[in-house]
Amino acid sequence: MMGADSPSAVRAETAETPEASDRNRTIEALESPESIAAEVSTRIEGFLASKAAEFLTISPDAHDIGRALLDFTRGGKMIRPVLLWWGYQLAAGDDPSRDRMTGGVAEAAGSLELLHAAALIHDDVIDHSDTRRGKPALHRQFESHHAERSYQGGAEPFGIAAAIVVGDICLALSEELFERSQTVLGITPLARDLRATLRRDVMVGQYLDVLAEVVPLEDERIGERAWEVLSYKSAKYSVEQPLLLGAALGGADEEQLAEISKFGFPLGQAFQLRDDVLGIFGDPAATGKPAGDDIREGKRTVLIAESMKNLRPEQVQVMAERLGDPHLSDDEVDECVVMLTESGGLDAVESFIRTKYDEALSVVREWADRGAHADTTRTTIGATAQRQLEGFAKSLSYRTS
Amino acid sequence: MMGADSPSAVRAETAETPEASDRNRTIEALESPESIAAEVSTRIEGFLASKAAEFLTISPDAHDIGRALLDFTRGGKMIRPVLLWWGYQLAAGDDPSRDRMTGGVAEAAGSLELLHAAALIHDDVIDHSDTRRGKPALHRQFESHHAERSYQGGAEPFGIAAAIVVGDICLALSEELFERSQTVLGITPLARDLRATLRRDVMVGQYLDVLAEVVPLEDERIGERAWEVLSYKSAKYSVEQPLLLGAALGGADEEQLAEISKFGFPLGQAFQLRDDVLGIFGDPAATGKPAGDDIREGKRTVLIAESMKNLRPEQVQVMAERLGDPHLSDDEVDECVVMLTESGGLDAVESFIRTKYDEALSVVREWADRGAHADTTRTTIGATAQRQLEGFAKSLSYRTS
Repeated sequence: MMGADSPSAVRAETAETPEASDRNRTIEALESPESIAAEVSTRIEGFLASKAAEFLTISPDAHDIGRALLDFTRGGKMIRPVLLWWGYQLAAGDDPSRDRMTGGVAEAAGSLELLHAAALIHDDVIDHSDTRRGKPALHRQFESHHAERSYQGGAEPFGIAAAIVVGDICLALSEELFERSQTVLGITPLARDLRATLRRDVMVGQYLDVLAEVVPLEDERIGERAWEVLSYKSAKYSVEQPLLLGAALGGADEEQLAEISKFGFPLGQAFQLRDDVLGIFGDPAATGKPAGDDIREGKRTVLIAESMKNLRPEQVQVMAERLGDPHLSDDEVDECVVMLTESGGLDAVESFIRTKYDEALSVVREWADRGAHADTTRTTIGATAQRQLEGFAKSLSYRTS
Repeated sequence: MMGADSPSAVRAETAETPEASDRNRTIEALESPESIAAEVSTRIEGFLASKAAEFLTISPDAHDIGRALLDFTRGGKMIRPVLLWWGYQLAAGDDPSRDRMTGGVAEAAGSLELLHAAALIHDDVIDHSDTRRGKPALHRQFESHHAERSYQGGAEPFGIAAAIVVGDICLALSEELFERSQTVLGITPLARDLRATLRRDVMVGQYLDVLAEVVPLEDERIGERAWEVLSYKSAKYSVEQPLLLGAALGGADEEQLAEISKFGFPLGQAFQLRDDVLGIFGDPAATGKPAGDDIREGKRTVLIAESMKNLRPEQVQVMAERLGDPHLSDDEVDECVVMLTESGGLDAVESFIRTKYDEALSVVREWADRGAHADTTRTTIGATAQRQLEGFAKSLSYRTS
């Protein structure tokens, strides 16, 4: 990996964000999600391997930290890195310096994936989740080590303690990888601010989510709360802000960032609304989560809030008793699922998804329609890029896993 | 607080780290710990207040985050900020730009205090600690909110969930405040690296601490482990690295950093060895922790490791059964305390403290002796600064709380 004296670091001294004049052209095609995922995975693995080696110089006992993180970061969907990369491309265009910037963009994208890993590690502790990405959750893995190695004391508290600390380490590594990207790309104050905002929003969103689950179901702010959590914990963090951060790294101005938000935010909302639907109606074989998981976890989603509007008082009472009860039988979960459908909650959410998805698509079409008359610094895309953005938007809004 | 367009930010464009030629002079006096603590507290409070206001724009429900952090960061000992400040002074001397840099140094120092707060919040969750700084631990405070506000679900899991997230937010805010300091002080790659190392060391040290507590007491690596945890979780993080970070921000070169390490590392070891002694022999009224707390928590300190060397097999067995048992009676704790004394463990640790303390003092004397012949870029101090450093070293090594 890159050190302070590497060629990349030296190059960085002359690196500048592309000038507006260089960006004033149509983006014909975006990098493919597969190649971005491959490039970013390679960066993350190299970075984590070098960090794991550092940890070992502190103590041989630090072995499991690196191993756990390497293992945990494999197999993610890489949605945020792809969006960061595309944001960069939309802003930087085919600027001639782009190639030599690729390493920095991959590092910034990898940094988001590590931030996400850190959030998931702590999220699973908070939600008492047993599985993640089809494998035991990180705290469960450490809990297993405890038994395998005949450690003393409680296995579960050990697993939780280790996961809290490893999550903290992962968060710190995310910062460090972002720092490295700035060595290659040059210091970009706007991007640094956006990164701080992204990090803040996902964490505050997570806090609001924790709080929403303990507020009585009949509380009048249930709907507002659900939209707050959806927007900050996910829509902004997962879609809008990765795009914006990439665009800022690529030299976007405020006007272009505002345009990208008009695409990213509604798409992010559609993405999370779909997640809420899958959390209850999804096929466990496809989602990797047990059926009705969100009901046993007590998630207060927009789906729940919409359903509440039309439930009869006795149904509200049943729902209030069951949401968040980890010991519900499958039949009890099924009865809740029926209520969510019959109340019109599911239809309402599907309708929101359609509206948000259409909103995002209309922005993409606007960018494409401008393509032939690219006389501004605004985003303009060619037919291939349009197809890619539309396809990705569809896959986020209408995925099954 | 400072925004992108504030005078401080504008000034920062011309900010440079002091040149070696400016630093080549004797430091007569260091800023007093009291005035540093006051300046840093003001910065932290202002910063947290501005962040709390931001959180409220996301949701009125975010109210408790800012309140909890403001409350938690009050009443700390501010050891790390003082050391960072002094490190800065030792490197920057009375450089004429120092006054306008003060804001940046205060922010960097405040950032360390926020990092420490984040570590303590998670530490208390991990150790199931009920109190911190004489008040309920953060997770216990949120647990109380649960009862007061008639929230649903378990109060304890809610407290833990909230404390995990608020700790994450505190960690993120620490990053953000450090970023701000770089706006004033200028980007200093060496300082950024040192900060990453400091953050890594305390977290990996924390992991090693968690692990050490579950490894059987008879394990042959118990002594090495205790020194690893002591060095990384505390000695480096609490003393050596704050000094180094401050010095790097003040423009120190590698030679000067090495000199400062020779003072800071042994002093940090003495500081933590004293902490281990106080954790078992300290007066609860002074330490704010219950008597024998470290025994019930099962801390595997150097004190424990040294005592183990001379315990009889049946005593080892008693110790192994009792360490980490939160339900021990006061008599059972007392019996352990007697064993730690009679085994010679306490004497051994007091002797280590003396050695490390003397080592640190001898470095201070070297700096003072050079004072009259300040013909190098090495650290040279006057009589007042010498007295301050010696006094602080004594207070770290021989404190009672």
